[in-house]
Amino acid sequence: MAPTVKLAEYLFQRLVQLGIGSVHGVPGDFNLTLLDYVEPAGLNWIGNSNELNAGYAADGYARIKGISALITTFGVGELSAINAIAGAYAERAAVVHIVGTPPRAAQDGRVLVHHTFADGNFIRFAQMSKHVTIAQASLRDPRTAPEQIDQVLVQCLLHSRPAYIEVPVDLVDVPILSERLENKLKLPEAVWGSAQDDALAAVLEKVHDSTQPIILADGEIRAMGIVETLQELTKKTNWPTWITGFAKGLLNETAPNFHGIYKGKWEEEATRAFFQKADVVLCFGPHFSTTNSWGGTSLPEEKNTIFFLDTEIRIGSKIFRDVPARQALSTLLQRLDTGKMQRYEKYPELRRDRIVSIQDTDQNGPITQDKAWKVLASFVREGDVVMGETGTPGYGAREMLLPPNTRLFTPVTWLSIGYMLPAAQGVALAQREGLNSNEGSSNSGPGKSGGRTILLIGDGSFQMTVQELGTIIKHNLNVVVFLINNDGYTIERCIHGVKQAYNDVARWRYLEALSFFGAEKDAYTASAKTWGELGQVLADEKLSDGKGVRMVEVFMGKEDTPEGPLKDLMEAQRAKGV
Amino acid sequence: MAPTVKLAEYLFQRLVQLGIGSVHGVPGDFNLTLLDYVEPAGLNWIGNSNELNAGYAADGYARIKGISALITTFGVGELSAINAIAGAYAERAAVVHIVGTPPRAAQDGRVLVHHTFADGNFIRFAQMSKHVTIAQASLRDPRTAPEQIDQVLVQCLLHSRPAYIEVPVDLVDVPILSERLENKLKLPEAVWGSAQDDALAAVLEKVHDSTQPIILADGEIRAMGIVETLQELTKKTNWPTWITGFAKGLLNETAPNFHGIYKGKWEEEATRAFFQKADVVLCFGPHFSTTNSWGGTSLPEEKNTIFFLDTEIRIGSKIFRDVPARQALSTLLQRLDTGKMQRYEKYPELRRDRIVSIQDTDQNGPITQDKAWKVLASFVREGDVVMGETGTPGYGAREMLLPPNTRLFTPVTWLSIGYMLPAAQGVALAQREGLNSNEGSSNSGPGKSGGRTILLIGDGSFQMTVQELGTIIKHNLNVVVFLINNDGYTIERCIHGVKQAYNDVARWRYLEALSFFGAEKDAYTASAKTWGELGQVLADEKLSDGKGVRMVEVFMGKEDTPEGPLKDLMEAQRAKGV
Repeated sequence: MAPTVKLAEYLFQRLVQLGIGSVHGVPGDFNLTLLDYVEPAGLNWIGNSNELNAGYAADGYARIKGISALITTFGVGELSAINAIAGAYAERAAVVHIVGTPPRAAQDGRVLVHHTFADGNFIRFAQMSKHVTIAQASLRDPRTAPEQIDQVLVQCLLHSRPAYIEVPVDLVDVPILSERLENKLKLPEAVWGSAQDDALAAVLEKVHDSTQPIILADGEIRAMGIVETLQELTKKTNWPTWITGFAKGLLNETAPNFHGIYKGKWEEEATRAFFQKADVVLCFGPHFSTTNSWGGTSLPEEKNTIFFLDTEIRIGSKIFRDVPARQALSTLLQRLDTGKMQRYEKYPELRRDRIVSIQDTDQNGPITQDKAWKVLASFVREGDVVMGETGTPGYGAREMLLPPNTRLFTPVTWLSIGYMLPAAQGVALAQREGLNSNEGSSNSGPGKSGGRTILLIGDGSFQMTVQELGTIIKHNLNVVVFLINNDGYTIERCIHGVKQAYNDVARWRYLEALSFFGAEKDAYTASAKTWGELGQVLADEKLSDGKGVRMVEVFMGKEDTPEGPLKDLMEAQRAKGV
Repeated sequence: MAPTVKLAEYLFQRLVQLGIGSVHGVPGDFNLTLLDYVEPAGLNWIGNSNELNAGYAADGYARIKGISALITTFGVGELSAINAIAGAYAERAAVVHIVGTPPRAAQDGRVLVHHTFADGNFIRFAQMSKHVTIAQASLRDPRTAPEQIDQVLVQCLLHSRPAYIEVPVDLVDVPILSERLENKLKLPEAVWGSAQDDALAAVLEKVHDSTQPIILADGEIRAMGIVETLQELTKKTNWPTWITGFAKGLLNETAPNFHGIYKGKWEEEATRAFFQKADVVLCFGPHFSTTNSWGGTSLPEEKNTIFFLDTEIRIGSKIFRDVPARQALSTLLQRLDTGKMQRYEKYPELRRDRIVSIQDTDQNGPITQDKAWKVLASFVREGDVVMGETGTPGYGAREMLLPPNTRLFTPVTWLSIGYMLPAAQGVALAQREGLNSNEGSSNSGPGKSGGRTILLIGDGSFQMTVQELGTIIKHNLNVVVFLINNDGYTIERCIHGVKQAYNDVARWRYLEALSFFGAEKDAYTASAKTWGELGQVLADEKLSDGKGVRMVEVFMGKEDTPEGPLKDLMEAQRAKGV
């Protein structure tokens, strides 16, 4: 007889093979027996406070490790998490969402079980999830389950987007054939033929002819699995290289040809002029949402741009299909003729990000957004992950010059306020586990073990998902929280309603959070209202080298914003006299 | 020229006309201008900590006032709330979910704005909401907007289920005709003709012939707007009356013919025998989910039962269509011949709920679930709303004998853990505002102003949505929290994994919650491990008559459960040696 394993064992062995070390989620009636198999598979169970937070955490974990898993229960649990899954779809995090569903007999018999609308309909929630996942499997038949699971996991990884697997509770311990497990999952490669050669030839022709080529890397390079190869390209060419906010922390910021985020309308004049004069822009992994493109002002001119997308290359408006970026870029690297290409001996002085020393501030003056982020950049070390939540911290974080192998999260497209704190739980866990070299890590970025997770978060955001501090504490994760107390949703005040009460939030005693959520009574907390106080805090080794969670409350002005779009919005409102 | 109002004014005036006093929700980029019109319309803006909580709060508010409104932003906000909307659908709360969406120009131009998947698709989220709402309106045209709004609100009220309205940000202040506002919305009535007469005649024939008629009221009687009329029927007939958990708190529990929840398999023998011998069961608003029907064991026998549903009457398997319960029941009351019907002089002694005095407990002994809920019942006063969260408190709450005009929430069908705390915010607010006599209150239940909201909640549930304590504090709502600290998800332990770590939760310092979330430093907190300590706490006027939020941490055993199904499940697991 062919060897078998139980269905849950199969599923979890696959996750382990992909490099997943921990599973996020919340127990619920229809997933309890599934959870019995988590730890025996060698996976760590996190047990989040609620499902939305678990989903956010799984997203954060996936962006560092390449892939993650989330387990929720049918109906209530999965719907609570669905906004996080949608965010993972929008910004390309490979989250495997496993839902424990009622037994097949109850579904087929249309039994009016709880967690339904008591109407016998069991497929409604799967239909909803279809809108926000790249692949779905409703496991119903032990004969097809192994292939269904494999296929969904491959899609999840290949696209770096969430997938959805329904496991009826009565299938959890059913034996299924295990033979597929002997071969690890592999991502499919394109057949490389003349069409692909033609595409590359067209790219090379443009590139070799260029007198002023530049590189623009966007955040989908991680999802596309080309971060390392692209780093090689930037090194080999020495061409001026910019990124978007979404790509922040994926390329080495200390490289001499690295110029940080290209800010479009908000860029310095000389830099903008140079960027706009480029006759070839090699653009990798474009993700041109308004937030990620400075309101559309940082986009390269289409006619001069070569776009490397998931499965195609576009040169201006011409599309070469079925040339996946991963293969295209490696081939480009091989075929690029360094003799023919532009080798800048030197190009004009272009803007680079810089760190501001706390010494260059007024020690008794209030902490202001114009300098805060550049000062906080001095706190960051190689291997850290900096997380700037949607709000002023997310915009401010874009200004932080990073050491190598340091990742940074900033608002890109989904912008779901509340995301970043639970995501920090997932990130800190992934950092502790370390990167792996499995197929699952194809979607991870650079990193270095031993780093800290540094969360920069406003008070309004903090309130949304605060309970995940409890999970951070429970698992003793290494997280430094800078809570920006500016009395409400300042980013919304920039958009509308500067003085409106609806942009206020309840006034909490924020620094009591650690004690409330169960941290050791001597857990590090501090507050800073002046630059001098902030300097003392940043110099405190208990903060920089402490263990577990530490928290600093930083007070800033209610209507103060980082330079750039938010400031302009706020000033436009003031000009209107509101 | 015909008089006009701005679209937002129209919408909010309709909400005010329906008796809504406050609007729940969270600000977001696409709803800010909409929020400008909330307070000027005479509505109170709540400003919740996150959208799921706002949805739960709106659901709680709707179950007391009859209808409520929730405002979220496109994509992120609405999806965070969608589980709450689904719960409102399942258990019939009339929540009007208003979503601020991107301007029509951005939608039509497929602009890659934030809160989308940056793919130009703007209808995905509305498609998801369609699964969990009774009516939807995508407002796009000022000419049809008034009628669209009205139609959706009528559906919402008529079915007492959530509805969904998309308001593009550029439509908020567009003038629309106001003339429809002159007439308040009215719920449509059925045309009463011979078909309806035939249905009633069939009912009356069965009823007049019956020698042992009984009444079984389920929770949909609130949604159907027949609570008061049904109360009249029970009084007029004096027939033995039972309820389900869903109907708890809708009928007067001090009436001599009221026997509490019929517990099916877990009912006392004499009562079960009497119930099963009934030759006619008048069953109003059946909602026979497994949780609400003691695993299906409390259902009346179909052949003897007359079901009063939203729009039909069923006698056994025969269906009389288009006889809405509201009209059917009033007509039944008029046509019932008290001379012909059974008038019990007396019927056997049947079980009634009772309160247990704290004196009848071991003062030094630990607090146990067998008596805890019957003891806590002594704390309840007329006008209170008691909220038993899914978990042991929700099952225990079913045992509490209530004074008249006291409502009680217990797990029914959706059972989304985390619901009850934010719902308590909505309920307490509705209690403070008081019931109204608008059309919107057709779905409310009985009540009396000045009551307290008493929340009975386990530690696992508490963690899910804890931040809404901040909203309760911010609005100074009158809520007493009994936090049951039993070290994890005891209800899940009953189902599976008694000793499994996945049923544990992080250990918080629960009583620090009030201070953390911003309550006055002297806000009332207490803890109780023994009956003696609990007695002292319950006798403390600062608890019973204090203002704002008060909190008691009650310690109970990790594997202790109320009598009934949970206990049997736990014992079955012990028998298996787990």
